[in-house]
Parts: sequence; structure tokens; C-alpha cells
Amino acid sequence: MRYVIRVAYDGTDYCGWQVQPNGVTVQQRLQEAVRAAFGADASVTASGRTDAGVHALGQVCHLDIPNSIPGERLADALNAHLPDDIGVLASAQAREGFDANRSAKRKTYRYSLYFSSRRNPLLDRYAARTEGKCDIDALRRAGALFVGEHDFAAYCSSGSQVKTTTRRVYSVTAERRGELVDIYVCGGGFLYNMVRTMAGTMLWYSLGKLTEEDILTTLKEGRRSLVGKTMPAKGLTLMSVEYSPDPFSV
Amino acid sequence: MRYVIRVAYDGTDYCGWQVQPNGVTVQQRLQEAVRAAFGADASVTASGRTDAGVHALGQVCHLDIPNSIPGERLADALNAHLPDDIGVLASAQAREGFDANRSAKRKTYRYSLYFSSRRNPLLDRYAARTEGKCDIDALRRAGALFVGEHDFAAYCSSGSQVKTTTRRVYSVTAERRGELVDIYVCGGGFLYNMVRTMAGTMLWYSLGKLTEEDILTTLKEGRRSLVGKTMPAKGLTLMSVEYSPDPFSV
Repeated sequence: MRYVIRVAYDGTDYCGWQVQPNGVTVQQRLQEAVRAAFGADASVTASGRTDAGVHALGQVCHLDIPNSIPGERLADALNAHLPDDIGVLASAQAREGFDANRSAKRKTYRYSLYFSSRRNPLLDRYAARTEGKCDIDALRRAGALFVGEHDFAAYCSSGSQVKTTTRRVYSVTAERRGELVDIYVCGGGFLYNMVRTMAGTMLWYSLGKLTEEDILTTLKEGRRSLVGKTMPAKGLTLMSVEYSPDPFSV
Repeated sequence: MRYVIRVAYDGTDYCGWQVQPNGVTVQQRLQEAVRAAFGADASVTASGRTDAGVHALGQVCHLDIPNSIPGERLADALNAHLPDDIGVLASAQAREGFDANRSAKRKTYRYSLYFSSRRNPLLDRYAARTEGKCDIDALRRAGALFVGEHDFAAYCSSGSQVKTTTRRVYSVTAERRGELVDIYVCGGGFLYNMVRTMAGTMLWYSLGKLTEEDILTTLKEGRRSLVGKTMPAKGLTLMSVEYSPDPFSV
């Protein structure tokens, strides 16, 4: 039986999503919870990997388990065996052919910044510190340049193997949240480190280190020398993954 | 020479502010940093204690050190010897007679809640989970009842010894911040557990478990049976302490 779950995690202490030999991952902990709850080995497939240190409020995964339990009961069955920094927020039986990775239509990420000349221990777990003056309007102007279908080759960390570096970005917004500034990026799919490099580029534009022309050139010519730095993982949170129809409202 | 510092800390792993025999405290770590930086024993006096697990974005403290360094340099001198979860955000030389505790005019606390049927690992470090429906307007109506000078005896945990349980509350507000709801309470001073019990009472009113009459009765007759539960420490953050004049803008 196939099920779909929505998962939140604090990525601070994990080597990312995907099971790997050297270090504990979120996928590993979820698969261990399945084994503890149902005595079965199941592969838990996410909408996509998240890197070491990246957080999630709305990661979506599918998994097949031999047991048949009501869909909405699966969340608590897994939560009983998960550590404090991973939690299943919702669960449902999946419809035929649902694949958390291949069926995903859109993803929304949030990148959180705080502006301070000194490290702030209460903000620093889920946001990246930056020096300088915050200019929300400038962040928004830079973000608007990314909207549409573009070749994001300049925003992809070297070493990743993908067929195409063209991606569609639906929206980029920036807003204040208490002491933080949040950049929200919604797109059909993202290259490795793309959101973190977009956030760094928007920030550098807002600080006057890059011009609008520079950013347009990165999208036309793929020049990495003109993009901002790749921001730290801890500021990034996978907020939601959209499917059509919504797998949780069957 | 007397100095004033503004300190932020993640209270998760501390037994509160004040030095105590059984457990590590924030005051202890700051005094250790003074010793490491200046080779001197100094008492670091805060605007007031915070309980185990309570956080601060703007705790204010004074300290006397034998060395004479420019006021603004003290912050980084201490930060070099502090753990990651405590940080000095600002420092200055204090004017004569300044006392972080006795000179404090107003304090502002924030209590953060999230409404969810399941624990959310990404929200749970700095906010308290609650079941039920969020009603911001009801939280605000309940909060307004506390404004003014009242006998808060019903909001004071038993066992504390104070001369009077009358306190002045200047404002109580509630607002959304992303997935959270924040209650801000500004007052001239607070009894032990007062803000956490006020937050619990506002929440219970918003959930229909207490009436406006109940709350008014707690303030008139001091009846503890009519107040909401004392909310967990992790949702509470000391935001700022006000002095006149501002000790950081000398």
C-alpha cells in the first residue's frame, strides 16, 4: 500500500535528506521509523533531496508498506519512533501512481536572513547573518528578474549532473518576519544550490555589489563570476510542495 | 569601570539566568567570559532573572571590570569567550549610578505559540504548541484586560516572596509571524511566571475555556483557579529592557 506523508525537520544535525555512508540523514531516520513501526524495510522517497543543514516545514514523501492502516494514522505511528527534530505532520493513503518526486508540480523555499554586525544566537539557527543595511525593495527588484523560464546554469554548483539547466521560477518575494527577512522562491524545480545562490545574488544586489545588468547577464550567458555567494544551508527551509490534485485531500 | 551590555541567548540548554550549584546558567557563562578576557572576577547583573529554558533577544546587564577598554569593544572581547548560544550584541561604558536591575523602567516579553495537532520540530524550539483554532482577536481582547495597574497575585507562582503583587502592564498585543502567533507584553515589572500565566490565560479565553468575567475576577480577587495554565518556558523571550536615558546611546 502506498502512502504520502508531509514531514518537517530541523536539519541542523543531519547530513541532508539522502541516506549516505558517512553520517545520519533524515531519510535514514524515517526508514528506521518505518522498520520500528511495521517491521518492514521500506524506501521513503521525497519530493527531492535537501542538503546538509537545510530545514523543511513541508517536505512530501511517499512510501510503500505491506501493512494496511488508515492513512491518517500513519503519521502518529511513525512519530512514535522519530527523534525530536523530525516530525510527520500529516499522512494519507496515496492514489495510484502517486510519486512524491515525479508528481511534484511546484516547490516553495524560504531563505531567511538577519542583518547584524554581530552573530545573534537566537536567530542564527534558522537564518544567515549578513552585514549591511536591509533594503527589502531592492531584494524584491532583484527577485523579479528571476521570474520566468531561464537558464540557471550560473546558479548551479559545479559537479551536478543534469540534462538541462533551464528552470521555471513562478515567483520571488521578500518580506519581514520579526527580526528576520524572508525570501520566498516558488518554482517548478531547482538546480543544486540554486535557491541559496539566488538569495546571495539578491542580497549582493541589495548591498550595491551587483547591478541589474549583472543579474540579467548571469541568466543570458551563465557567467558564475557575476552571481552572489551561495548562502549557508541553515537559512534555507523547504516550505511546501504542490501536487495536482492535493494528495492529502483525497 | 562600569559597563552595560545587551545580550541575546538561546535558553534551551541553560538552567536560567542566575548562577546556581546544580547546572550551567547564562550568568555563569558570562562571568567565565569576563574572567577569560580580563583575568578578573566580576559579577554580571541582569535587568532580572530569566527562568530555565527562557530565551532573550535583549537582556541588559551591567558589570564592573578593573581594565579600561573602549565601551564598544567590550562586546567582542566577551564574545571571543562565549559559547555559540550566548552573544553580546552591544556594549558601552555605563554612566555613574547605572544599575541594570534597579534602573530598568520597562520590559517587553514575547510569548510565541503555534497551533497544530502535532508537534512541529522546526517551530518547537522557540514556541509552544497548542491544539485548537487560533483566534487573534480573542487573544487581543483578553490581553486588553491586563493593561493598567492590577494585583497580579493570581498570576504569580506560589513560593515566590515579593513585597507586593501589584504590577503595571503598559500594553499587551498579539500578532502573526509566519507560522507563529506572538503575544507581546510590556510592563514595569513582572512576578515570577507572570507572563507565561498571562499567555496561558489569554489562550484559554481564545479557546472558550475562560470568560472575560473570569479574567476580571482573577485581577480583583486573586483567584488562581480561574487563570489559564502556565505556558512552557521555551515560548518566552525577553525582547528588550528600557532605561531612561538609553545606556547605549551615550
